[in-house]
Amino acid sequence: MHNHGGEIYGHHYRLDYSVNVNCMGTPASVIEAAAKGAALSAQYPDVNCRELRSVLASFLHVKEDWIVFGNGAADVIFSAILAEKPKKVLVPAPTFAEYEQAAGVVDARMEYYILKEENDFRLDEGFLDALTPDVDMVFLCNPNNPTGHVVEKKDLLVILERCRQNGIFLVVDECFNEFLEDPKACSLLEELEQYDNLMILKAFTKTYAMAGLRLGYGLCANRSFMEKMAECSQPWSVSIPAQFAGVAALKETEYVAESMKLLRRESIFLKEELKRLGFQVYDSRANYIFFKAAPDLKQACGERGILIRDCSNYKGLAPGYFRICVKKHEENLELVRVLEEIVNG
Amino acid sequence: MHNHGGEIYGHHYRLDYSVNVNCMGTPASVIEAAAKGAALSAQYPDVNCRELRSVLASFLHVKEDWIVFGNGAADVIFSAILAEKPKKVLVPAPTFAEYEQAAGVVDARMEYYILKEENDFRLDEGFLDALTPDVDMVFLCNPNNPTGHVVEKKDLLVILERCRQNGIFLVVDECFNEFLEDPKACSLLEELEQYDNLMILKAFTKTYAMAGLRLGYGLCANRSFMEKMAECSQPWSVSIPAQFAGVAALKETEYVAESMKLLRRESIFLKEELKRLGFQVYDSRANYIFFKAAPDLKQACGERGILIRDCSNYKGLAPGYFRICVKKHEENLELVRVLEEIVNG
Repeated sequence: MHNHGGEIYGHHYRLDYSVNVNCMGTPASVIEAAAKGAALSAQYPDVNCRELRSVLASFLHVKEDWIVFGNGAADVIFSAILAEKPKKVLVPAPTFAEYEQAAGVVDARMEYYILKEENDFRLDEGFLDALTPDVDMVFLCNPNNPTGHVVEKKDLLVILERCRQNGIFLVVDECFNEFLEDPKACSLLEELEQYDNLMILKAFTKTYAMAGLRLGYGLCANRSFMEKMAECSQPWSVSIPAQFAGVAALKETEYVAESMKLLRRESIFLKEELKRLGFQVYDSRANYIFFKAAPDLKQACGERGILIRDCSNYKGLAPGYFRICVKKHEENLELVRVLEEIVNG
Repeated sequence: MHNHGGEIYGHHYRLDYSVNVNCMGTPASVIEAAAKGAALSAQYPDVNCRELRSVLASFLHVKEDWIVFGNGAADVIFSAILAEKPKKVLVPAPTFAEYEQAAGVVDARMEYYILKEENDFRLDEGFLDALTPDVDMVFLCNPNNPTGHVVEKKDLLVILERCRQNGIFLVVDECFNEFLEDPKACSLLEELEQYDNLMILKAFTKTYAMAGLRLGYGLCANRSFMEKMAECSQPWSVSIPAQFAGVAALKETEYVAESMKLLRRESIFLKEELKRLGFQVYDSRANYIFFKAAPDLKQACGERGILIRDCSNYKGLAPGYFRICVKKHEENLELVRVLEEIVNG
C-alpha cells in the first residue's frame, strides 16, 4: 500500500537511508519552539499563520499573500489539485508519487513523460512537445525525486512560457532546491509575479529535518487560484508546533550553511564509494543519490539493519534502482561497509 | 473570510469564550508527549499511526482497521467527502460550517433542513422526510454545534435505518459526545459493525484541549469506504507530536472525570446567570451554551476583553444568537460581571 521511504515503524533499522531529510537532524531551536507551541495547544492554530507568514515572506522576499501553508508539502499538492480540478495531468516519470495520488482524487487522467534510461533519466527537449493544450496541469519536481537531476533556469523558463501559451498550470516542486549549490539559478521564484500559471512548492521538511512536524507551503501570485486553494482546505491545517517550529527554523542560517558543506563533502565521498563498489551512480545534485544495483539490494541492506529506498515502484523505473540520502561521515562509512559486505558476498 | 471561533490572533482578549475546548486546559502529560514527539521530528510520522491506533482501538473497543486518523476532525470531513463524492448533501441548519465547506470542494449541492426557532432549533420528525433517495450524504452533529442539543439513540437509529434504506451515507459528528452525562446513550458506536453507511467523527481537540495539535479520527466498518478515504488523503497527515499526544491523552481518565464534574457545575451556574441577566438560554448538554441576546453583544464583550462566538454567520440563524464555552468558575464569574455591566449599560 504505502510506497514511500521512511517506513521505519514496526521494524528495527539502525540507519534509515530512505528519507531525504537534512542529516544534521532537527535544530535544537526548532524542537524547543515546537515544544513551546505544544504547550499552547488548548488554542486553535492561527488560521492565517500570521507570524510565520511574515517571517517567511521577508526571508524569501515575496509578498505575504503569495504564501499558502499546509500540513506538509503533500497537503499543498492535494489542495492545488482540488483547486484546479484538472482533467489531464502531465508528469515526468520517474518522479514523486504524490502528484499522481492527488490527481486521482479528482479522477484526472495521468499522462507520463517517460524519462529515458539512455539519457540518465534527465528531462529532454521532447517534454516541450508534450505540453499540449489538452494538458491542464504539470508537476515538475526540481531537483527531481528520485534522480536528483536539475532543470536549469533557462529551460524552466521555456517550459513555463509554453505552459502559459497552452493554458497549463505549472507546479514546480522546489522542496530540494535549497540543497543545490546555487539554489537561485534553478528556481522560478523570481517569475512568480509575472506568471499566473505558476505555483512553487516548498517545505521545511527536508532543509530543516522537520518531517514529523508537517510544514510545507506553496508560492503563487495568482490571487483567484489562492482563494480557490483556501476554499479547498480546512482552516486549521498547520498545527501550532509546526507554526512555531517554522519561525525558529528560518533563523537557522548557520545550520543550513554547515549542512550544505557537509552535504557537498559527503555526497562526493558516497558517490565515489558507490562507483568503487561497481554500482552505476547517477549525478544527483540534491541531498540524495540515485544508483543502479542488483534488484535485491534493499532486502540485503535491510537484513543488515539499514533501510534504503527501493525505487522499483516509481512509474518509469525497472527493478534495480535505489535512492539513498546523504548522511554524516560515520554513518556513510557504515553504509559503505555494509554495501561492501553485500557486494563481496 | 474565516467564520469560526478562536480568532484570538492579532487581538488582545483576556478570555476566549469562543472555542469549545475542555476548560481545564491540555493535560501536562499530553504537552510532554507532544514535546517528545517534536524531538523525533527528523523522521516522518508513522503513516499507520500504529501505537495510537492500537491504544485507541482498545479504549473504544473497536477494531483497529475501523479507525482513520486525520489532521483534526476537519481533515477527516474533507477526506470523507472526497471519498464519497456526493452529488447532494443534507445537513440540518444551524450546524458546524465545515461540512458545507468540504462539500463545496466536490461541487455537491447542499440541502438544508432548517431547524425551527419555535422548536428551540431541535431536530424534529420532519427530518426523516428529508432523507430521500436523491440525498447521497448526511452530516449530523450530535450534540449539535452551536445549540448543544442532542438526538437520542432511539431517534438516531431511525435516521440511520432510513439512510440505509435510501442509500445515504450518514456521518455522525460525535466530537462533543464525551461531554454528555451518558455518552453511550447518544452514540452510534455500537452500530458501526452493522451499518456500512455509517461513519462516526471524533476528535481529541475538545475532550483533551488539543486544538493546536490537530488530531481527529473517523470510525467506520465499511472497508471499501475506508480504502477510498486513504486514497483521498496524504499518507503523513498526522504529525508525530499529535500521535504521541493522542497516546498520552487516552490515559488521562481522571482528568476527564474531573472535567465533567466541573462542566456540570459550571454549566448550571452559567445558564442560571445568563437567564438572570435576561438572555434567552437554550438547553445545551455539551460544554458550551447557546443563547439569544442583543445583536451587538460580541462587540460589547470584545471591547471588554472577552471573545464570544457570534453565531449570525451560521446558516439558519438570524443575528442575535451567541455561543460561549463553559470555563472555570473564576473565569465564568468574570464573564458574568462583564455581561452584567453590558446589560446594565
